[in-house]
Amino acid sequence: MISKSLRQNRFQFQKTFRLFSTLQSPTEQDFQELVKRAPSSLVVNHWEELEKYNKDWTGNYSGKSRIVCRPNSTKEVSSILEYCNERKIGVVPQAGNTGVVGGSIPIGDEVILSIEKLNQIHSFDGINGIVQCDAGVVLQTLQEKVAAWDALVPIDLGAKGTCMIGGNIATNAGGQYYYRFGSIHSNIIGLEVVLADGTILDLMSTNRKDNTGYDLKHLFVGSEGTLGVVTKVALNCPRLPSSRNVAFLACDSFQSVCETLAKAKEHLGEVLAAFEFMDKAVLDQVATEKRIPLLNDNGENYDFYVLVETQGSNEDHDMQKLELFLESTMESSQAVDGILAQDMKQVLDIWEIRESCNPIIKSKGYNYKYDISLPLDCYYDIANVMRDRLSKFPTVEVVNWGHVIDGNLHLNIIDKGEFKVREEVKELIEPFVFEYTISKKGSISAEHGLGQCKNEYLGKYAKDAATVAVMKNLKQSFDPNGILNPSKFLPSL
Amino acid sequence: MISKSLRQNRFQFQKTFRLFSTLQSPTEQDFQELVKRAPSSLVVNHWEELEKYNKDWTGNYSGKSRIVCRPNSTKEVSSILEYCNERKIGVVPQAGNTGVVGGSIPIGDEVILSIEKLNQIHSFDGINGIVQCDAGVVLQTLQEKVAAWDALVPIDLGAKGTCMIGGNIATNAGGQYYYRFGSIHSNIIGLEVVLADGTILDLMSTNRKDNTGYDLKHLFVGSEGTLGVVTKVALNCPRLPSSRNVAFLACDSFQSVCETLAKAKEHLGEVLAAFEFMDKAVLDQVATEKRIPLLNDNGENYDFYVLVETQGSNEDHDMQKLELFLESTMESSQAVDGILAQDMKQVLDIWEIRESCNPIIKSKGYNYKYDISLPLDCYYDIANVMRDRLSKFPTVEVVNWGHVIDGNLHLNIIDKGEFKVREEVKELIEPFVFEYTISKKGSISAEHGLGQCKNEYLGKYAKDAATVAVMKNLKQSFDPNGILNPSKFLPSL
Repeated sequence: MISKSLRQNRFQFQKTFRLFSTLQSPTEQDFQELVKRAPSSLVVNHWEELEKYNKDWTGNYSGKSRIVCRPNSTKEVSSILEYCNERKIGVVPQAGNTGVVGGSIPIGDEVILSIEKLNQIHSFDGINGIVQCDAGVVLQTLQEKVAAWDALVPIDLGAKGTCMIGGNIATNAGGQYYYRFGSIHSNIIGLEVVLADGTILDLMSTNRKDNTGYDLKHLFVGSEGTLGVVTKVALNCPRLPSSRNVAFLACDSFQSVCETLAKAKEHLGEVLAAFEFMDKAVLDQVATEKRIPLLNDNGENYDFYVLVETQGSNEDHDMQKLELFLESTMESSQAVDGILAQDMKQVLDIWEIRESCNPIIKSKGYNYKYDISLPLDCYYDIANVMRDRLSKFPTVEVVNWGHVIDGNLHLNIIDKGEFKVREEVKELIEPFVFEYTISKKGSISAEHGLGQCKNEYLGKYAKDAATVAVMKNLKQSFDPNGILNPSKFLPSL
Repeated sequence: MISKSLRQNRFQFQKTFRLFSTLQSPTEQDFQELVKRAPSSLVVNHWEELEKYNKDWTGNYSGKSRIVCRPNSTKEVSSILEYCNERKIGVVPQAGNTGVVGGSIPIGDEVILSIEKLNQIHSFDGINGIVQCDAGVVLQTLQEKVAAWDALVPIDLGAKGTCMIGGNIATNAGGQYYYRFGSIHSNIIGLEVVLADGTILDLMSTNRKDNTGYDLKHLFVGSEGTLGVVTKVALNCPRLPSSRNVAFLACDSFQSVCETLAKAKEHLGEVLAAFEFMDKAVLDQVATEKRIPLLNDNGENYDFYVLVETQGSNEDHDMQKLELFLESTMESSQAVDGILAQDMKQVLDIWEIRESCNPIIKSKGYNYKYDISLPLDCYYDIANVMRDRLSKFPTVEVVNWGHVIDGNLHLNIIDKGEFKVREEVKELIEPFVFEYTISKKGSISAEHGLGQCKNEYLGKYAKDAATVAVMKNLKQSFDPNGILNPSKFLPSL
């Protein structure tokens, strides 16, 4: 293979990549025009009044936008983008605003384009299992509606009560059932997208197979609103499983977690739906607010926990598989203790422990949050390495959980009692955590994306120069004025 | 939604789309230079000597290339493309040459770039089930090697003995297990691609999750070699099933086929792996060369057949599910007759019937081949409509099979005893078959792609003008000289 350094500048931009220095602040006159084009829009004199749209839940990002356009139709989205493109006004597309990298928060006074009013579910094709809906439908609402049709939405994540399906698509959301159902790329059937200049791209379809031309919809998946605004979605929805079981197991070592995972794949086969991991450090935090149903003989949390879910079409078969798995993993002492949920309430209670990791650690202090992919054979090493590096700070705790079955670790560092960043802590974490991750051929952003948090690291810790050049060229080609989610996702230089 | 006609011209090309009129024919001097850059290349004075590369198996397409570059490394691919790009010489990337739309056959004297010598399997990660290999590995070779590692390649199709994994990716190959394992988009983990100017794009990875930047690899999936040449692949490989069963059922009507499909989804759930359909017309052809193991009381073929395959991790469970399914479908007379393969030989014999449809009808006469997606409720109507339209030609037979579970129909029209196109037949088929398909919101190319056969139909029968404009813009941006697979895939105007 040719050395990258020789090649990296070969792929030339057609025009110089603009750093959005030419973008305009919207004026009072612009506000009036935008409200004319999308009458449900909000214009406020004090930006604090738009705090819900200008700030995110992590508290790490805030913007100073004075207008939230809330189009009621694709046509209104188109009209707003057309205007902003002509006037060179930055636009931040926003769905449920549940991201952790500031991707939906303005950097300055850009126009916020909320898709919250695009919230209709249009149709469900029961024969093929395809739902068509607007991009602003809340994930949980969609899940409930689709469940009534005896099918499921193949995406699930902790933020489901607030996040919207269009946001899930724009960020290529992962979540707990990624192993079973695959990524958004696996499940997207059709898309409607409005481009920066207002062009409506109709990629909606209910054909599972369609090889006519470039499959453009995949370009928008995970592009974080920088190439277009997703307005409608057609999504694959598998049958609702008639049988769903959850086991919660304790392990004494991370090696045992890996062996338990291998056993789960072997015995549970096609009914294995999720395999999540949590360490003692995070459950010690969770335990301050929730009862952990498995404790060791000293009444303390075990070192490691795994949550195993099966979904299948035959309760007897699934239970038999699960029993074989549990016997095998217990006999070999890979799991040292375990419970099997006896009803749906217990299933939800166990998931509640997993899903409360994030909100509970947030309440304990400042969170340094990392969402990385690592090979399984060194997946947990980073936790111990970080503990060593940070050992001189008594208030700092390294807590971990994640979708271990996908190689995806949520590494979180809590500075207990502190509620803002401390530079002396941060400089021991970054850029080390990124350097470590790439040294193991992992990814510095497994499922959370780049936003305004990691965009500058793209060329440094993720992709080579030729790849970044191609990405910039794509951006330039789709959004030559750079109005869509400016200064995010791609590095500025 | 805004009317398409108003919007269609909004998305402007950055430059005018070139019709490749500026491409050069390669000279003797070019041949010498290319052989220097890829010493295994073949240069031949009589183009007939390169027939294997200049013609395809359908006999419908042939080129007049005098050089087949056969690079031994990515670096050689890069060097060839760099040269051809500078000299503005057209290049046709070619893998196994098993397509049906002429996508890998030169139109004129373009350079053929065969990836056949890039045929190494590099690694298999047993924990995560990821194989890394060169793009020129033959699919069946890859399947066999991966099976030895107790895993499977999630792509399978009739041409497996000849087609190559890089070609499967470049054409987004579908095949029989698409329902179970998903498309190439679902299974691709990493890719190495050489762009038109020779830039090597290293998108290889073994991370299942990686949200750092645009996921460029999806752009190349199904792009038929018009944006770059795939040279390496990392692919998801699920566990090999320990249990595999095949049933072959007869139905009296297409309605019963659909009801049997619904029952299969209900009873077989997560172990359902394939559900294929064949009609009497095609099996009457197959029966001239193979014994059909299910006949009606008159010793004739039934009107419809389905092949149902399960793959699972527990033989007892799978058999129980299959028995419940068979009982249910037989009791309700949805299936009127059926056999269950008793061993692997019988499994393969049943599949042999399905896979011999294509080669056997080819031997009977000229084939008009269509590969369309249609909604299930009108999936088979086109066959009868076509029979009516063509009833005045006694030698013409409309024969059908396909991946009915994906809505994908292989509609084939045989002109028995004829071995070339008859315009009076063709004009009754086209453009009617395309107009009919789009009137039902189907796709005119479900899995076979566009190549040089259907590229001119893209804007007419598949995508709207705005979408085609975006595609042309992408092509322009990746391949400004238009050297890659010229005059294919996209419409000329």
